[in-house]
Amino acid sequence: MREWLIEQLLRMNLSDSLVREQGFTRESYTAEETEAIDVFKAIAEELGLAVTEDAAGNALARWEVVGGGAAVATGSHLDTVPNGGAFDGGAGVVCGLGAIKMLKEADFEPQRPIEVICFRSEESSRFGVSTIGSKAMSGLLDLSIGELKDQHGVTLAQAVESQGFVWQDLLNAKRSKEQLNCFVELHIEQGMHILNHQKDYGVVKGVACPVRLAVTFNGKAGHTGTTPMDHRQDALAAAAPFISFVQETALQMNDAYGKALVATVSTLTASPNSMNVIPQTVTAGVDIRSVDDGLKRKMTDAIHMEAKRIEETTGVTIDIEVLVDNPSVLLDDGVARRLADAGVSEAYTAHRMDSGAGHDVMNMAQSWPSGLLFIPCKDGLSHHPDEYASAEDLKMGVELLARFLMEATSNDGNR
Amino acid sequence: MREWLIEQLLRMNLSDSLVREQGFTRESYTAEETEAIDVFKAIAEELGLAVTEDAAGNALARWEVVGGGAAVATGSHLDTVPNGGAFDGGAGVVCGLGAIKMLKEADFEPQRPIEVICFRSEESSRFGVSTIGSKAMSGLLDLSIGELKDQHGVTLAQAVESQGFVWQDLLNAKRSKEQLNCFVELHIEQGMHILNHQKDYGVVKGVACPVRLAVTFNGKAGHTGTTPMDHRQDALAAAAPFISFVQETALQMNDAYGKALVATVSTLTASPNSMNVIPQTVTAGVDIRSVDDGLKRKMTDAIHMEAKRIEETTGVTIDIEVLVDNPSVLLDDGVARRLADAGVSEAYTAHRMDSGAGHDVMNMAQSWPSGLLFIPCKDGLSHHPDEYASAEDLKMGVELLARFLMEATSNDGNR
Repeated sequence: MREWLIEQLLRMNLSDSLVREQGFTRESYTAEETEAIDVFKAIAEELGLAVTEDAAGNALARWEVVGGGAAVATGSHLDTVPNGGAFDGGAGVVCGLGAIKMLKEADFEPQRPIEVICFRSEESSRFGVSTIGSKAMSGLLDLSIGELKDQHGVTLAQAVESQGFVWQDLLNAKRSKEQLNCFVELHIEQGMHILNHQKDYGVVKGVACPVRLAVTFNGKAGHTGTTPMDHRQDALAAAAPFISFVQETALQMNDAYGKALVATVSTLTASPNSMNVIPQTVTAGVDIRSVDDGLKRKMTDAIHMEAKRIEETTGVTIDIEVLVDNPSVLLDDGVARRLADAGVSEAYTAHRMDSGAGHDVMNMAQSWPSGLLFIPCKDGLSHHPDEYASAEDLKMGVELLARFLMEATSNDGNR
Repeated sequence: MREWLIEQLLRMNLSDSLVREQGFTRESYTAEETEAIDVFKAIAEELGLAVTEDAAGNALARWEVVGGGAAVATGSHLDTVPNGGAFDGGAGVVCGLGAIKMLKEADFEPQRPIEVICFRSEESSRFGVSTIGSKAMSGLLDLSIGELKDQHGVTLAQAVESQGFVWQDLLNAKRSKEQLNCFVELHIEQGMHILNHQKDYGVVKGVACPVRLAVTFNGKAGHTGTTPMDHRQDALAAAAPFISFVQETALQMNDAYGKALVATVSTLTASPNSMNVIPQTVTAGVDIRSVDDGLKRKMTDAIHMEAKRIEETTGVTIDIEVLVDNPSVLLDDGVARRLADAGVSEAYTAHRMDSGAGHDVMNMAQSWPSGLLFIPCKDGLSHHPDEYASAEDLKMGVELLARFLMEATSNDGNR
């Protein structure tokens, strides 16, 4: 199984190595993402699954059963951040397929259909919004986000259409409550909690959904050599104390509330970004996360006050746009208990925890009882070329998923 | 003359308006620059000048005389910063041509050749180095800068070759001391000194050449949602206090030394610049200018100390690369006196001043007695779409240049 998992993961990453110096760049609705999903489909067909694609480009690999009924589903995604790793998303996809292989080899006969879903475009790095495929599937897609542009000016709707889909039709990817019985995502932890608690895997209670802001500083361009220092409205000089403020305030709130919040100025674009021109416009992207929605609110309130202070002292005007503001998501207790039970059956120890990162499961949880299972990754590192999960832990993931799917699709598992 | 100047300036800007909302973008060694220079050549030919192009792509429009001898030259450039104005460079080119027209219409017969030079690629916005054409002409070109890349990864050498020139051959654009008698550049002031001193035009004593640094902050990427605040090496959070430091230190040095220095963090590039990834690498471009080279040194020393302090407190490593470090240039006293005298003849008042901006003349001054003449521009604004100089001031520039060229190419003017 270990060799099979590594081999399929290499295939889906179109690579002969799972750790590369420049990592993997397979962004939302690009040809690279489509190519990886095509490999997913091929592997699923080799396992004898029926493969379809929905209107959003999510790939569904289904183990059909006589009589049908609501399917038990697992899955994750294959897109990456720029220079990301091979495991963020890929681990969940390959372990889902591995669990099918294991159940088939054991001649297991499910009483419900089982699906492995490869979602489109989970990462927000290209358009600033995440989990587009699972939003569409769970009926949470707002078509207005089709106007969002990547850094080259391509809109999300154009990117979707470049991969052969029709933006308006993404609404048709919505599935009914009756079609799925439950959903479980397996993902690498992207943190150190499992290992710090000396456990084998994580079972997630709640997902900290982000608040994301685009903060634009509107200054005035001018010649760097001839504009006196005290006659400037330098957008970058105004943005600098803002960046420091976000970092310092998040650290202070961690001290005050026990490491419950993270906030990052993760993107910055300066214009005209020219050596001899004073920066006219700077747009900073801020990512704020906590499972405590009240704490996210405290942070955004503090950011608005700081922006006002900077406006008053610099003459640079500041616009704050809310890109994303989703409440945090609590996952299903019953599914979590069954994921913890799967560990008992397979002799692995579970750590109950929260997730600092968003995942497709947070959308699926709005419509179907859903769970999230974490396997460890090396040094907690993710969104980085050195991201790594061991074949041993991937195999554990397969065993846990297989146990869960088996229980959930046996006669007595059909609750 | 006013109408003719505006008409030719519109032609060279390939526009029906000299002030446009998005300004003009005609960067170094692009097709846009080449197209503008082609219009310059056409206008020069209409005036009966002999037009040639050197190995760097500088265009030379020459009023030949029987007997030849060392030419008196004037000129400037037609490239712009992104979203720049129509007058930075263009004013000097069109006034040079206007002066020829005026002298020809007055049936003036020069005793020396007169040249109007349109230099290539004065602005540093694309490759971080400025005045490439005049560096080549005055023998100051270091071929190693051909490796410098623009933000799309195109090298300077590739850009040069895209416009039909051969990078190595740029050395052949060097002219001998014997070929030119002297050089005068006319340029918009890009500041407010002339108007603040209630004078008509500026005669420059010295040019403040920049020190330019590329400061790279090497942090560590990671997931914004799962990496605790106190376990981060966020390159942008480390760059923020640096940006503030440059701004504040320049302001302090202005207080201490009388507004003699400007320093700007004018460019910033963050990588991977992705909403859910902690910034791994940030490169900031710093532009430092003063006619006092010792003051520039004080500023760069302070920057090195601050970088060391940030390294120690954040764990982010910092590399400082010196892109440019040219000593400031003193212009020729004799030429300056003749430029001031030209004002007396034409009833305009001159302000003796320094230039905070670099210009092609700073290279020409290394080989030939050279001068720099400023005409006012509206609100001192430049490198900005609202950059503007009046037709009246352009006409004054023509009269001053014509007077200077007349004096310098008459028998008694041949010193």
